[in-house]
Amino acid sequence: MIQTDICIIGAGPVALFAVFEAGLLKMRCHLVDALPQIGGQLSEIYPQKPIYDIPGYPAIKAQELIDKQMEQIKPFSPTFTLGERVDALEKQTDGSYVVSTSENTKIHCQVIVVAGGLGCFEPRKPDVEGIFDFEKKGVDYMVKNPEIYREKKLVIAGGGDSALDWTIYLSDIAQEITLVHRSDSFRGAPDSADKVYELAKKGKINLLLSHNLLGVQGNGSLSHVKLVNKVKEEFLIEADHFIPLYGLTPKLGPIANWGLNIDKNAIAVNTFDYSTNIERIYAIGDINTYPGKLKLILCGYHEAALMMQSAFKYVYPDQKLSFKYTTVNGVNIF
Amino acid sequence: MIQTDICIIGAGPVALFAVFEAGLLKMRCHLVDALPQIGGQLSEIYPQKPIYDIPGYPAIKAQELIDKQMEQIKPFSPTFTLGERVDALEKQTDGSYVVSTSENTKIHCQVIVVAGGLGCFEPRKPDVEGIFDFEKKGVDYMVKNPEIYREKKLVIAGGGDSALDWTIYLSDIAQEITLVHRSDSFRGAPDSADKVYELAKKGKINLLLSHNLLGVQGNGSLSHVKLVNKVKEEFLIEADHFIPLYGLTPKLGPIANWGLNIDKNAIAVNTFDYSTNIERIYAIGDINTYPGKLKLILCGYHEAALMMQSAFKYVYPDQKLSFKYTTVNGVNIF
Repeated sequence: MIQTDICIIGAGPVALFAVFEAGLLKMRCHLVDALPQIGGQLSEIYPQKPIYDIPGYPAIKAQELIDKQMEQIKPFSPTFTLGERVDALEKQTDGSYVVSTSENTKIHCQVIVVAGGLGCFEPRKPDVEGIFDFEKKGVDYMVKNPEIYREKKLVIAGGGDSALDWTIYLSDIAQEITLVHRSDSFRGAPDSADKVYELAKKGKINLLLSHNLLGVQGNGSLSHVKLVNKVKEEFLIEADHFIPLYGLTPKLGPIANWGLNIDKNAIAVNTFDYSTNIERIYAIGDINTYPGKLKLILCGYHEAALMMQSAFKYVYPDQKLSFKYTTVNGVNIF
Repeated sequence: MIQTDICIIGAGPVALFAVFEAGLLKMRCHLVDALPQIGGQLSEIYPQKPIYDIPGYPAIKAQELIDKQMEQIKPFSPTFTLGERVDALEKQTDGSYVVSTSENTKIHCQVIVVAGGLGCFEPRKPDVEGIFDFEKKGVDYMVKNPEIYREKKLVIAGGGDSALDWTIYLSDIAQEITLVHRSDSFRGAPDSADKVYELAKKGKINLLLSHNLLGVQGNGSLSHVKLVNKVKEEFLIEADHFIPLYGLTPKLGPIANWGLNIDKNAIAVNTFDYSTNIERIYAIGDINTYPGKLKLILCGYHEAALMMQSAFKYVYPDQKLSFKYTTVNGVNIF
């Protein structure tokens, strides 16, 4: 059984900063993540993308931020269980918890912090004939690495921000893009829609409004997408990739069964310490919700700082917390 | 009259990040600070001190953080009024505000953000006869620009770090320095005190311990400082400048009279958008308070992000705010 003060579920940037804030208060952390590596979405989905809104970094690549944060928490020697999903928790008579994972690893802790990002999220899949046969063979429900589309023929489908933004972004990378949308106007941001209309006008993309998807075809891998227009004419478009971007449905997974108050697929928390309705369980970062919530990394950092001040009482019930500035006291290794 | 969307009071790290978050939403900012330079406390009080709790920076010197943040907001071209204290505000019939400063600079804006840190630092003024008559005529309570003391005769008073550090620094610049302290030992850092003793030993400064200040004299501008020693002998020292450095006391200043809800010398705000009790006025960073408040720079960053989302409706009343990630959309210059 792993013994720790704080068990953090997740190993993304907010989880890592929580280790730092815990460390300043001399609390040890063990982190559990279903992904096989540290870094959450940043390392898994967009390691090479620059982030522009980390305060003090005019631009920093996602993986570089994770690396810097790992350096920052080195003095506090966090431990990790990776590639295992948290399943169950068991309350002990003294109030502490034992958390167990999909591989039956057990962690005994005083406090649980859910910092699981969007959780395990699944894309919404359109009802298109043959689509399941071409998953991983040309049908992609998410853009993970834009580079794989270089000089390829793409059909993108959807009318929201994701479809608009990726159409704009990929228009410089792909050989040919067709954007298909069933309605004649977009749900996404008006200025993004304007950019898309502009690209279509310049002939940089093919824009097919009021079109519906019928099916996908190919021999082993995807070769064509079948569409139908307003006047019921059916036709085929050549495509190396078909990218339906109808949004992601985040799934909380087993956490949803813990009795936490859930609001729109996120864990409802208080804003004074980001505690949940269950004592000793906190939720920070993209997985929580409260009035005014923004799903930004920098907001998760703040939540981690306030949350650890509140968790201190469970780890050191007999001590008074004294708040100290790092500029005055530095960082004490343990 | 300066025209802007958002008038930010303060120019410290939280104020600077607020410019970034405003910029993402296409809102322009003008910043006003009583200090003569950008950076707030970080540049004024501890520019060379390392900070350890900025997420993603294992350590960063205070001034370096300010420099990085200035680089980060460059795309949004903020404008500044420095060395002037905000005094009054006047509500316009359309709901907007005109802010005016101690030097009667006027700024017209839709939204006011108080990001004033600990407030405007006001120097502690010693009880010395005639001192008020010579303010701006030789009596300086802060060293703003060391160059104005080149080849001048200075009397510096005080026993803390500020008096010691400026005595050391100015000993290479001034023609003559007398350091006066009422006690026979210094409160400041021992190694700074050692340096001062060394300078006195070498005859580079005159060190007068156990002396008290009696008054300042001059004809229009300062010419002499009057002192008294342990054995009650009074005497005059020639001086172009008298610089009493007895520390700074943070004061809310004129902001305290604006009708804002004040709680323990800080402005009470809501946690969903950091708005105050007065519509269109927000408060972020060390100057605000709410349940769970921590006076950390990283918390101010979060407050700035949420606050700007809320302010958007006053700047663009007819537009719907669409929230976008910088990883997807980048940063658009204006």
